[in-house]
Amino acid sequence: MTDTRLDVAETLKTLPAWRPHDGDRAAISRSLKFADFNAAFGFMTRVALMADKMDHHPEWSNVYDRVEVLLTTHDADGVTDRDVTLARFIDRAAADMGAIS
Amino acid sequence: MTDTRLDVAETLKTLPAWRPHDGDRAAISRSLKFADFNAAFGFMTRVALMADKMDHHPEWSNVYDRVEVLLTTHDADGVTDRDVTLARFIDRAAADMGAIS
Repeated sequence: MTDTRLDVAETLKTLPAWRPHDGDRAAISRSLKFADFNAAFGFMTRVALMADKMDHHPEWSNVYDRVEVLLTTHDADGVTDRDVTLARFIDRAAADMGAIS
Repeated sequence: MTDTRLDVAETLKTLPAWRPHDGDRAAISRSLKFADFNAAFGFMTRVALMADKMDHHPEWSNVYDRVEVLLTTHDADGVTDRDVTLARFIDRAAADMGAIS
């Protein structure tokens, strides 16, 4: 598969909940907070199902009601349309699950 | 609830897959690797159900087939029997799910 690298700053104009990763890799990240662990892990489960279907997986962590998500495309060494597609799904799932932030 | 803090080094003698957290908190951690994302997230789902039932939640992260788990008891500012109980469940679930490490 050949994925085209996107410009991160340009891409983030259409993803207001996301920010550029502040590490040394081209990636985008979003911090989410839910009502409780049940909501947070329910959100993660929805994203996991979609991610595995896309064969494009997030790097993420969870502490109780909080989830940190980082998206990048390793094959392209940057951010691609696959990250944007998954980011948009994450935004919809977060809204559905009543994400507080 | 009053949880008694356990000595981490003593506790880890009975949890060989776990190590002391190398940060500034009294905690124990385990790194796990599975066959693929499906196995890793299946493991996480089993642990999530148990954790929410216990009302005692891990701090954890996942990148594809790898899961990092940290256990500590915030109320006690250290490691307690609740962490040991969850760690033992995690070890059994990891074995069931064919954890490679």
